This record gives sequence, structure tokens and C-alpha cells, in this order.
Amino acid sequence: MTKQPIGVGMVGHAFMGRVHSQAWRSVGAFFDLPVTPVLSAVAGRSADRVAAAAATLGWAAAETDWKELIRRDDVQIVDICTPGDTHAEIALAALAAGKHVICEKPLANTVAEAEAMAAAAHDAAARGVRSMVAFNYRRVPAIAMARRLVADGRLGEIRHVRAQYLQDWIVDPEFPLVWRLRKERAGSGALGDIGAHIVDTAQFVLGDLLTGVSAITETFIGERPLAEGSAGLSGGAGGAERGPVTVDDAALFLGRFAGGALASFEATRFASGRKNAMRIEVNGSLGSLAFDFEAMNELSFHDHTLPAAEAGFRRILMTEPGHPYAGAWWPPGHGLGYEHTFTHEVKDFLEAVAAGEDPRPSFGDGLRVQRVLEAVTVSAADGSRWTAI
Amino acid sequence: MTKQPIGVGMVGHAFMGRVHSQAWRSVGAFFDLPVTPVLSAVAGRSADRVAAAAATLGWAAAETDWKELIRRDDVQIVDICTPGDTHAEIALAALAAGKHVICEKPLANTVAEAEAMAAAAHDAAARGVRSMVAFNYRRVPAIAMARRLVADGRLGEIRHVRAQYLQDWIVDPEFPLVWRLRKERAGSGALGDIGAHIVDTAQFVLGDLLTGVSAITETFIGERPLAEGSAGLSGGAGGAERGPVTVDDAALFLGRFAGGALASFEATRFASGRKNAMRIEVNGSLGSLAFDFEAMNELSFHDHTLPAAEAGFRRILMTEPGHPYAGAWWPPGHGLGYEHTFTHEVKDFLEAVAAGEDPRPSFGDGLRVQRVLEAVTVSAADGSRWTAI
Amino acid sequence: MTKQPIGVGMVGHAFMGRVHSQAWRSVGAFFDLPVTPVLSAVAGRSADRVAAAAATLGWAAAETDWKELIRRDDVQIVDICTPGDTHAEIALAALAAGKHVICEKPLANTVAEAEAMAAAAHDAAARGVRSMVAFNYRRVPAIAMARRLVADGRLGEIRHVRAQYLQDWIVDPEFPLVWRLRKERAGSGALGDIGAHIVDTAQFVLGDLLTGVSAITETFIGERPLAEGSAGLSGGAGGAERGPVTVDDAALFLGRFAGGALASFEATRFASGRKNAMRIEVNGSLGSLAFDFEAMNELSFHDHTLPAAEAGFRRILMTEPGHPYAGAWWPPGHGLGYEHTFTHEVKDFLEAVAAGEDPRPSFGDGLRVQRVLEAVTVSAADGSRWTAI
Amino acid sequence: MTKQPIGVGMVGHAFMGRVHSQAWRSVGAFFDLPVTPVLSAVAGRSADRVAAAAATLGWAAAETDWKELIRRDDVQIVDICTPGDTHAEIALAALAAGKHVICEKPLANTVAEAEAMAAAAHDAAARGVRSMVAFNYRRVPAIAMARRLVADGRLGEIRHVRAQYLQDWIVDPEFPLVWRLRKERAGSGALGDIGAHIVDTAQFVLGDLLTGVSAITETFIGERPLAEGSAGLSGGAGGAERGPVTVDDAALFLGRFAGGALASFEATRFASGRKNAMRIEVNGSLGSLAFDFEAMNELSFHDHTLPAAEAGFRRILMTEPGHPYAGAWWPPGHGLGYEHTFTHEVKDFLEAVAAGEDPRPSFGDGLRVQRVLEAVTVSAADGSRWTAI
Repeated sequence: MTKQPIGVGMVGHAFMGRVHSQAWRSVGAFFDLPVTPVLSAVAGRSADRVAAAAATLGWAAAETDWKELIRRDDVQIVDICTPGDTHAEIALAALAAGKHVICEKPLANTVAEAEAMAAAAHDAAARGVRSMVAFNYRRVPAIAMARRLVADGRLGEIRHVRAQYLQDWIVDPEFPLVWRLRKERAGSGALGDIGAHIVDTAQFVLGDLLTGVSAITETFIGERPLAEGSAGLSGGAGGAERGPVTVDDAALFLGRFAGGALASFEATRFASGRKNAMRIEVNGSLGSLAFDFEAMNELSFHDHTLPAAEAGFRRILMTEPGHPYAGAWWPPGHGLGYEHTFTHEVKDFLEAVAAGEDPRPSFGDGLRVQRVLEAVTVSAADGSRWTAI
Repeated sequence: MTKQPIGVGMVGHAFMGRVHSQAWRSVGAFFDLPVTPVLSAVAGRSADRVAAAAATLGWAAAETDWKELIRRDDVQIVDICTPGDTHAEIALAALAAGKHVICEKPLANTVAEAEAMAAAAHDAAARGVRSMVAFNYRRVPAIAMARRLVADGRLGEIRHVRAQYLQDWIVDPEFPLVWRLRKERAGSGALGDIGAHIVDTAQFVLGDLLTGVSAITETFIGERPLAEGSAGLSGGAGGAERGPVTVDDAALFLGRFAGGALASFEATRFASGRKNAMRIEVNGSLGSLAFDFEAMNELSFHDHTLPAAEAGFRRILMTEPGHPYAGAWWPPGHGLGYEHTFTHEVKDFLEAVAAGEDPRPSFGDGLRVQRVLEAVTVSAADGSRWTAI
Repeated sequence: MTKQPIGVGMVGHAFMGRVHSQAWRSVGAFFDLPVTPVLSAVAGRSADRVAAAAATLGWAAAETDWKELIRRDDVQIVDICTPGDTHAEIALAALAAGKHVICEKPLANTVAEAEAMAAAAHDAAARGVRSMVAFNYRRVPAIAMARRLVADGRLGEIRHVRAQYLQDWIVDPEFPLVWRLRKERAGSGALGDIGAHIVDTAQFVLGDLLTGVSAITETFIGERPLAEGSAGLSGGAGGAERGPVTVDDAALFLGRFAGGALASFEATRFASGRKNAMRIEVNGSLGSLAFDFEAMNELSFHDHTLPAAEAGFRRILMTEPGHPYAGAWWPPGHGLGYEHTFTHEVKDFLEAVAAGEDPRPSFGDGLRVQRVLEAVTVSAADGSRWTAI
Repeated sequence: MTKQPIGVGMVGHAFMGRVHSQAWRSVGAFFDLPVTPVLSAVAGRSADRVAAAAATLGWAAAETDWKELIRRDDVQIVDICTPGDTHAEIALAALAAGKHVICEKPLANTVAEAEAMAAAAHDAAARGVRSMVAFNYRRVPAIAMARRLVADGRLGEIRHVRAQYLQDWIVDPEFPLVWRLRKERAGSGALGDIGAHIVDTAQFVLGDLLTGVSAITETFIGERPLAEGSAGLSGGAGGAERGPVTVDDAALFLGRFAGGALASFEATRFASGRKNAMRIEVNGSLGSLAFDFEAMNELSFHDHTLPAAEAGFRRILMTEPGHPYAGAWWPPGHGLGYEHTFTHEVKDFLEAVAAGEDPRPSFGDGLRVQRVLEAVTVSAADGSRWTAI
């Protein structure tokens, strides 16, 4: 009773490529999947480096042209792990070729690109071709549990959301001008890289959409040493020459949800001491939630219906069999790590593909996030004026 | 070598009056003061209740007219603990009578009143008459320590402030329409009551001023049962009749400081499970701070100049002899409570009065906060438009 | 409708005297007492110092001989705040004189003294004379709440207790030889000073008694600089001469409760970074509790009867009207401090005296603790042999 | 430049087998190893189940007899993941066959077996055959960092260790009699299963050995429903028939280290709400450490040499490049999970094998732990009498 194999081809093999590879390699050992993913090929621009990556990360073949990768018969799924400026072209080509697509976030660098991608995904779905944007934080067990509690009405009417994504990796003005700090590659700075995550997470947890925002953005350090090469998160030693930072260092915005909740968002890479503090708090008429990715195995839940003398935020360790995804892993108290959010993601993607269903978050969801980011940019450029989405 | 006595007269004897009384009664036992405060008289509208309050709270006499209280020869200090709509009239009268004034926050319900008060305080200071607005949180040891660390340059250039004041006492729609929910008495809702605190605290900790804001406000529950009497925080059982809530339930705003820091503020009474979460986080180029009044004896400090492998937010118990105010109390680890912030406040006030110096926060500082609140209101009413202060 | 006054005389005015004074001064402003405590007189050996203390702490008169204090007609309650070696003599005299007695812990320095005191208290009670040993931690709201939860069966059968009292004030070998480090004054070291607290607290919370222990004790620093004077907790600069430390620096013991619970106790002054970490955890078949005095306004409670996916330790802020003692103070979230445990203590003591009831913890309870400490000493000296109590 | 492959054969494929498999599969993608592990074969008693496990977990072949597995030419490393009663026989056979051995903990069920294993390992090492006992917690980055801090003298003289391993999976008396509750399979209960971990961890962190203990043990629930099959941690529904629990439910012991530190240990499966709380605190003259596996990505460190006003326990997120093992994984703040401790373990094992060095913890280290457990059992049976190791 062997399962149908399904070939995966991955484009890009840097930070995201490494973690996606681990997910594809591991998912079958923990989840009883309807199909068996096969790591067919990985694509990268440098022949040497992509060959080394294939060997290290477990891919059977290496390609230097992503178009060739898409063309391969042993590739039914294209996994896009490149910077945002290439997402649209690759995704559109893959969908046109009838390949299922999982694409890293943000979906694109512009709303126009995202619109084209969402439209293509919609058409492809009619032909049985699936697509998903990789907002992996939806698959943190605590976030999935938060969604469940809200959906079950345990929080009552939602009044407040405060979401922050705080990092500190460019606090040092000598940190070099890596691609994530250049608008032409990254589209935006903290806003698109990490702000996108908290927008998607907040909309996911609430099961509701933002209707407008008021925003401010800032670039604290205007010039940085030029990076040697495109080194992703770790810049290495910068040289003497400097170039302009063309993205935001921080973005703050207020928002309102269709259901009436007020929201506050903050994305920054200048919060010294906060390494990956993806935090969200939700307050409702019947309860509240709090989460911080730096303690990703914990969800804080306050049940406001308990007697006041016994109520308080309880720290739920998200490792119980009854928690989302957790039952596939270890006994209670034996926590998961960052990489497992991707394992959960590809598990859900494979199940949807096998079932002939559209996985979420869809490209349409990704477009929705993109529209929020666009509204933030517009508002920030126009005196924080309230901007509808 | 007995110390000069100085008579205190207090107006109002509800929540604030109780805690101020405890401060006046206790301060001399812990701090070596230049003068000895004497609890001369308390004023309240009901003869019975004010007499009972005087007996319970330790005041030598009771008055039913605050004008009589000001007139008393044994009153050199007037302590105003009434709702905001009465502050201006009482304070102006007291200052005119040459009495030192300590006035609860917010300084007034309108900028116009606050301007008049600040002007009167300025004139009075020239005659040796002192005044202070009672933003007690400045005297939380952790907040005073935070101010010291910032002033000493330990945080470097300040990039971010996020300040929240979260309560939940009116989450229940059946909570009655107490005076704090009526604009004519309270001036505003969460904004003036608790938002004022975080604005003052943030400006104090940074030693910097907000230059503009963008805001949204909301009233979640438009009507509430009429309260029987004016019951302050605890409303008792509401009746069948209902009246309109005329203040904000929540106010959120973004801001910028003169020195370049970005800020996010939120004041709400709808954060289920948060009882008195006056929280502030500050991120700078060399370090960060975090504080939550629900754990008032702790300050979190991250020293970004330490090697990364050893750095992290450290929980400093604010009970060391070297901490602000703490040396006067108990051995390390034996914490303080809410009331002690007031004891510290009157200690500093008495020292300033005795030294012939102007205590802080001044009425001018209170006016400054009032202008911020006004800008918030203006911005919220005008599509979150950026509003200079 | 004035209340009956009741005169208090306090012996000793150092650390404990200061905090007891604050309690006697403040209790009437917050609790509706059946009698009104009057701070009649304080006794101390130095005429100058006791006079200064009386003035600062609010006592109407000063005595240099505690026997005179007991003799005074305006003293109905004798409050003993001196080192342990004097407790028995003063308490026996006071009881003999028909005065109610509240005595600091540990009740005495030896079991023999404690037995005499418990016997005298028993006899006195028959004559309507009340006594109490001042284990103030029973009046931390969180500890009283813990007791209530256990008594209500919310934890089910108790399986485990782990209690620690961790301080660090003598980690430095140059800290001088203060009276608390000398057996003839203090009786024992960490064991009697802070170990006594966790023994009493554990027995109180469980409503159960220890039946045996196995122990080890240690003195890490054998000699210390001689202190100039008897400086209590703060030793000041030590001189060149040294003397032997004659008490334990740390005591660890295992125990069993009559009801079957296993227990682990640790008292030490060598836990660097722990300032006053009086910690207790209790695990039962239906739930668990955790408490740390360094966060005294919080109680952690795990309800094991909830669905596993929703269960976890919840942080209950002990400031709700329904919490022990808390309703007398401030609104929710406005915490209490160390001193309030004493205010609660004298409140309960005064109510018991007025009601003609025996307050708890009684001298008998104090004796029971003393027997545990004695068993610890015996076991530690005899190869950790199990020693029944 | 391909690396030398090295074949691994694993015995057992339940809980431990699953996590070891993930480690062997993943290690090469993250660490630059001197050899390439090949998952050659897995052994299990049931042909069906072991074949299924091989397919799921990625092993090339399946064996139903572990002796066959040892005999295979493509197996150079034998990984023992079976219950403790089989460790000695398998390990001795594997070593005799010249295969490197990594063996789950506890090393054996008796000291005699452990002695034989340590002797065989010693002899094998002389022939270049390596062995290791799998105390995986040594490879938690925070524990490895704790060891480094102690070894570097950052804690000064160690005074105190308190180590606890708290679980709650058998609180329910209806939980069935799984193999871990039967002495003939498991050797002991909480003591050997989880107590062994904290003994090894404490000795590792301190770089010091326990010299004696005083202990108590208890079995709270004497009889349990018979399990259907041997279900490991999850018992499934128990039947009507009952059998005796023949191991301890909890073990508590005090100890002394050679270097003078006092220690307290507790291992229990009855701590409701604690899921996998492997906790250790260390106090020294210059600093302190605290760790809880339930928050495995955090280490608390107090530097006692800092000014008191700035000192406190700092929460170090163990995800910096400078932290043990962490640099191989993700950017700062992107945490690891339980399984990664095993990945680190096999990485260190493979490096030692390739380098011709003896990996640690050795079978000798495992024997040392076994002697401590034995002393605990002896002391508990003999009135907690101090028992040298």
C-alpha cells in the first residue's frame, strides 16, 4: 500500500531554502500523508553552490535555471524561496505549466504583481492546480490554537489586537547594505518582511479583515556599508563604500477590523534585545490571548468567564495531543522549534493537493496582505491619513 | 531639633483621597523630611461622609466647602483629589490664596483650563508658592530607574517607545454609567484617565517631548445602566434605566518624539484579564527597557553592549538600596506596592517646598500632557490626520 | 459610635519594629476594626535611640526597660520585635501580666523555651489573654488564597511540596559577623530565620503537619569580620578582626506530611541573585500551585480538571475584591507590598482579641515549627538520619 | 570531495527510535560532518511493525533480530533505543563485534550491568571502538552554555544546586501499568527514567561529582489497570484487571558535591501541570544560573559581579551564533525543539568517532550516574541514612 510520490522542485536555497528542505525531508516521518514528497530538484544561479546545496539539503538534482526546474517531469510542486522581486515571474510560469506552487511571503513586492498572481492562481485552481503563500506562522501550534479559540467564540467579541514583530539585527549602523535593505530586491523593509507576517497572523487569528490603517514609517540609518555579495541576514564585514538604505527600518500602524476590533501593529529591526519577537495579543469580551514567538511553545489564555478570584493568564504548553499539529511529535512538554512551522505547512499543502482542495493562505490571502502593506505606505506618505483597504 | 510642621488640606476622599492620606500619614516614618506634614483637614460635600473619612483616614478636621479648607490657617498645602472638572477652580483659588498645591491628574479636562492653571502656577512660583501635578507613576522606583538609565545614556539613541495602559473594569456592558464614563465630569475616558499616565511616563522616561500624533478612539458600549450615585471605580448594581457613555472606551495613537523616537500608545478599559497593566518598552541603540506595573517591583533591562551570547533582558528587582526611593524601605526583595508611589510623591513635593524649588511634574508638564490628549482627540476626529502638538 | 481603643506597646524598633509600627499606624484606615489600636509606647535599650524611634515611628512614649513597658496601663498588647534569645522572657512576663502578646518568629531559640511559651499561652488563653507568633507570610494574600484552594479540595490529594527561601545577603565573605550569624543571639542561621517561615507556610497551606525530616546543613564561610555594633541585616564596613560564624549558612531537608505528601525544603543566604525568594510549589492530584514572594502579588494555579489542551499555570493577580485581604485596599492590579502582610496580621490579631478568640498562628503553632527545626538539626548532625517530629 | 559514509543500525523504534531517526536523517544537512551517516537498518521484534517503521523513519532495511543487525556489514554504529533491561546484552555484543555504540539512558538497570558495560567500553576504546550513553540534555544549548559558564569561572565557587525533573503523565490512577512502571523492564521509576537525567546534567554542568546522598522515595498509586501491550508513554485505555506498580513514582534526595556544593534533587511523575520540567538552578559566589526545559531556548544567568542596582537574572535566548550548536541552525530568536538535542548528540558522536576520540558522556559516566541512583535506593530503604557514592 505504497503512497503516490509527488515531486518537489525548489527555487532558491538560502535561509528559506534550508528550512523548506528540512520540512520536505521530515514531513513524511511524522505525518501520515496521502502522498509521498520526493525532493526532485533545486534551482540556483551558481552551478557550484546549487550542487553543494542539493547534496547537503537532500535534493536529487540541481538546476541553474528555474525555468528548467519547472519543466522537469519529476516536479509537480514548485516551492519558491527566492527574494520577493522574482516571485511573480516564477509563480506565473509554474502555474501556467500546471505545477502546484508554494511561494514564500510576501507574495510579491507590489500590489500589481500580487493581483496578477492571485488571478493566475484562481484560474489555475479551476484546472486543479493549487497554490499557497507561505505564511508559516499560521502553523505555529499556538497560533493555530489561538485561531481555534477565537473561532469557537471563547474570546467573545474581539475588541483589541496588538501585534508586533520586533528584531534587532540591524541596530548597528555598520551592518552592511544586504539585499533586504534594498527596495528593488525586497520591495520594502521591516514592513514587507516581518510586518506582512503580523498582518496575516492577525487576520488569520481573528478570521476577520483589516478595513483601514493609519501609519508612520522610518528609516533610522540612511546609509550603510556596501555588502560584498548578497548575504541575506548575515552581512559579513562591510567595506568602506556606502550606499543608501532604500527601505523602511520600522513601520507602525493603527487599524480597524471589519468586526469592530481596534488594532496596533509594529514591525521593526531596531528593537535591541528582541531577536524574533513576533507577538500578538487579542482581547475580547470573554477572554484574551497573548503569544510571543520567542517562547513559541507557549500560549497565554485568559478565560474571562471564570470567577475573577481564579482568573488569570494561563501559560498553556502547546505540546498536548489535542493541540494543532502537536500530536504528531513528542510527548507533552517536549517542545518544537522554528522549523516545524514549515513541516506543518508542507503537510497541509500536500493534504490539500491530494484532496483537490485549495490550501490556505491562498494567493488571494497574500494579495490581501499586500493591499494592507500598500495602504500603510500610502498613509505614511500622506500624513498618516486614514487609508481604506 | 524638631522639624517645622506644615499643614495639609485635602479635597476629596474617595479612591485618590484614601491613597493620598496614607502617603501623608506614612511619609515621615520612612523619609528624613525637612518638614513634618500635619493632616490638618479634609473637605467633602457630605458632612457625614467627610467626617467619617477624616476619622478613618487620620485628618484632624473636616470641611464641607473646599473654599473653607483653603482659607484655614493650618493649611499650607492643598491636595486636590477630586474629578477633573473641579481641578482648575480649586487650584486657582488655592494658588491665589498662597497655598502650595498638589493636584491629581489629568491636570484639567480641557487645554484652556490647563493653560490657566499653568499660568497661575508660574505666577505663584514667583511668589514662592509651589505646585505639582500628581503623575504618581514617575515615582515607581522602576520608572525612576528607567529615567536614570536613559539619562545616563545607557540606552543610546532612543528608537522606539511602546506604551500601553490596559484595564478591564468595564468589559461587562452591564457595568453602570459611573462618573468616569461621563464627559462632563471626567473630560474623557481611557484617554484622560490612563492615557495621560503613559504620555507623561513616556515623556519623563525619555526626557523628551512628543511632537505629533495620529490617533483612533472608540466607544465600544454606547449605553450603560445609570449608576445609583457616583460610585467611582466600583459601580454597584446598575438600574434598569440607561444613559449614553460620552467618553472613549479606548484610545490608540502613534507619535514621534523630538529626538526621533517612534512611539505607539494604547489606553483601554477593555483588555480582559489586564487589571492595571501600565506597560512601557523603550528600545535604543545601546539597550532596551521594559516595565509592567502589574509587576511593579521589576524592571527589565537589556544591555546591548554586552557580548551577544551573554545578553538578554534582565529582571532587576527594584528593591536595592541603590534604587530610587527603595533604600528608605525594606531589605532587598521585600517589595513595595501601589501606595508607595504616592508616598514618594509627597516626599519629593515636601522637599521641594522646603527647599524653595519647583517640584516636577509641574502644572506646565501637566499642560503639556493635556496638549497631547487634545491632539489625540483632534486627530481621531479628523481621519487620523497627523496632528502636531 | 467610636470604637474602643486598645493600647499597644512594642519592644524593639529595628527592622521588625519599623514594619510593625507601619502596620499598627495604618490598619485602622483600611479595615473596619472592632477596636482602635493606639501606639502607646515603644521600648529599646538606648534612651536616645528609642526616643528618636518613637518620634519617627509614631509611638506616644518611649521606654528603656521592656518591663516598664509591660507594666504600663495604656498597654494591653505587647508586640515583641527583638532577636529570638529574648522572646521567651518578654513573652512570659507579658502573658503573666495579662497582656496580649504578638511575638516575632521564630518563637524562640530552643524547643524548651518554645514549650514554656506555648504552655504559658495556653494558660493565658484560659484567662482571656491572647497570643500569636508573627509568621507574617500567612497573610500574603497569595498564601492565604493557596490555603483556601487546598482547603476547598481544589488540589485534590497533595503529593508534593517544594519550599525554598533563598537570599544572598551574605554571599560576600567580607560581610561582617552581625547578630544573625551568632548562635547565642539568633539560635540558628538560615534555618531559624527563613527556614522557619517556609516550614510554617507549608504546614499552613497544606493544613497538615510534617512528621519527619532528613537534613543537611552547612556553614560556607567559617569566619567573618567582627561587626561594629549589632547592625541587623546591613553590616556596614567590617573591621580587621574576625570571629567565627556559629550558625548555619544553609539548611536543606526532605520531609513527609501526615497526609502523605513528600516535601523538600531549602533555606539559604547564599543564592546569588535571589533577594527574598520565598517560594512554594504544591502539586496535588487535581491541581497545583506555585508562589514566589519576589512576585508577591501573583499566585500561579493549575487546574488539572480542565481539558489538557486548555490547562496551564495561570497567573492570578492577587488584587481582586474576592481575594484574602485585597478588598480593603486598591482596585484590581494595584499591588501590595511586603509591609501589608503585617497590616493584615495585626488586623487579624485585633479581631481575634476583640472577639475573644485565639488568633493563629498560636504559640503552639510556633512550637510545632520549632520542633521541626530541632529535628532538622538533629538529623543533620546524625548522618541525615530520618528524624520523627 | 565526498565524505566517507558510516552505517548506522538502530535497535528499537518507539519514542526514542523516532527521535534518533530524525537526528540521523537531519544531522548532515546542518553540520559539516567528517563522515556521512547512512541509515542502514533498524531492528524490532515484529516484522510488520519494524518494516513499517523503516519505511516511515527512513531506514534502508529492517531486521527482527538485533543480533543480525549487529552482524551487518553496512552497520558500523549500533544505536540502542530499547528499554533498560536489554541495554547490557546488546551493547556488549555490539562492542564485541567492533561496532561503535550509542546507548539510551539509563545505561543499565543495575550497577552490575553498568559496570560490565563500562569495562567493555574501556576495552573497546583501546581497539578504537567508541561508545556513548545518550544523556541528550547535555546537548541542549542552554545546558552546554551553563557548563561553559561554570567552567569559565563565571559562577565562582558553587554553593547550591537544585535540580528537578517534574512530569505529570501518571497522576491519573487509571493510567495503565505500562512497561515504565514495571521494575523488571524499567529498573526503576521516576528515579531511573528522569532522575538519571538531572543527576547527569548536574554533574555535567558543575564538572563535579556527587559524593553522597540522603533520599526518600514513594509509590503513590500501588496498583494500576493492566496495559494492553507495552505502550510506552501513552497507555491507551486500561482494562479491568490490575497489577502492582513495582517502581517509584517519585524520588527526592539531598546530595553533596566533591567541591562543596549542596544539592537537592527531585524526580516525579506526579507534578500536575508540569509536563517536562527538567529544571536546574545553580548558585555560586559570583553568579547564578536557572533553566527549565519547558522553555528550552532560554537560559537565566545572574552576574553577581555587576553593581547590585543593575543586576538580575537575564533571560538569554539561546539562539545566537556564539551559543553551543546554535550557529548551525537559524537566525537569532528562531528557536530549537526537543529533537535537536539528539541531532547535536549524534553530531558530537560522529565527530568523535571520526577523530578517534572517546565521546562523552561515556559508559563510565553512565555508570557513575547508576551508582548515584543505587545510593538513592539504598538510602531511601535505610531511613534516609547518608550514603556515600
